[in-house]
Amino acid sequence: MSKTPVRKGFTIWFTGLSGAGKSTLAHELDRQLRARGVPNVEILDGDVVRENLSKGLTFSKEDRDINIRRIAFVCHLLTRNGVPTIAAAISPYRETRDYARRLIGDFIEVHVATPLDTCIERDVKGLYRKALAGEIGEFTGVSDPYEPPLDPEVVCHTQEETLEESAGKILAYLEERGYLAPLRERTAETVVMRGN
Amino acid sequence: MSKTPVRKGFTIWFTGLSGAGKSTLAHELDRQLRARGVPNVEILDGDVVRENLSKGLTFSKEDRDINIRRIAFVCHLLTRNGVPTIAAAISPYRETRDYARRLIGDFIEVHVATPLDTCIERDVKGLYRKALAGEIGEFTGVSDPYEPPLDPEVVCHTQEETLEESAGKILAYLEERGYLAPLRERTAETVVMRGN
Repeated sequence: MSKTPVRKGFTIWFTGLSGAGKSTLAHELDRQLRARGVPNVEILDGDVVRENLSKGLTFSKEDRDINIRRIAFVCHLLTRNGVPTIAAAISPYRETRDYARRLIGDFIEVHVATPLDTCIERDVKGLYRKALAGEIGEFTGVSDPYEPPLDPEVVCHTQEETLEESAGKILAYLEERGYLAPLRERTAETVVMRGN
Repeated sequence: MSKTPVRKGFTIWFTGLSGAGKSTLAHELDRQLRARGVPNVEILDGDVVRENLSKGLTFSKEDRDINIRRIAFVCHLLTRNGVPTIAAAISPYRETRDYARRLIGDFIEVHVATPLDTCIERDVKGLYRKALAGEIGEFTGVSDPYEPPLDPEVVCHTQEETLEESAGKILAYLEERGYLAPLRERTAETVVMRGN
């Protein structure tokens, strides 16, 4: 078993509007974790999960909830086996995120709180344009609700923070809560090992 | 990180008729692995997965395949993170099992080859009676096909082996292929550690 600074499995649960930057932030966090010596991180991206676990589901409230509960089930299995896991899906409903929190236990909710206006301006996938033109229905923030978290562990303001800063806040939280060994301590361990 | 005799993640993929003894064998294997010092084993049981990942799917070939591909996706994530994983689902179609094999890589196919007659005699859940009476359709072995593996890694004959023997054959295979540290070697390690 390789030495890892991860002391306990956890799930970083990103929630936020389409285009808020959840996937981008997930990959930046993955990069920073690996740079810290974490050998494996599992990212469950909304789009990938829809393909592998939820093909055929619609964007109705019922189907969105089923999709999120499936992601939560897989995060639960990974987390209890010590895997650092990142989920990046809109997950618009508070109640369903709370279900995920209860199931997973070691659950860190990160609100990617990019304002709707900014998401509409960015419109990376061109989906807001279509949603605002009425070409796509049930679109979160436009024609479908988004319930922001009331008490998330971390809030990222991507419109005023760099990607590094946002991910850094999450890393700091993981250290603070003992999920991740702090950098200083790991250096000491390395020195001791070299001393042998 | 606790010391574990597992050197690499793997998936033990049980396939066989309803009532062949897949779940029972999965739990016996889990017991034997834990007795050998493996701290965590993940069992993906067909029924549990249908509830958590595949609610609403039927028993048509298409839906069975979707169900199996979802199980395979989760086994793949667990296996590549070093988790010893056991899947116990009928998985009647050869092609879909081969898809799971390719996706997972460290894949040990175990045919629980209990003959149909024996399964009908046991009829633990009373399903064969109903299937034979035509009250349940699409029932594997009765009104739906089962394609036995052509070259499985292990075959268990539950009608002539004890549960311990069947699980023991799988453990032996895991040792032989280097997934599991052999007992002797681990004893030596323990002695050395005590010597310190």
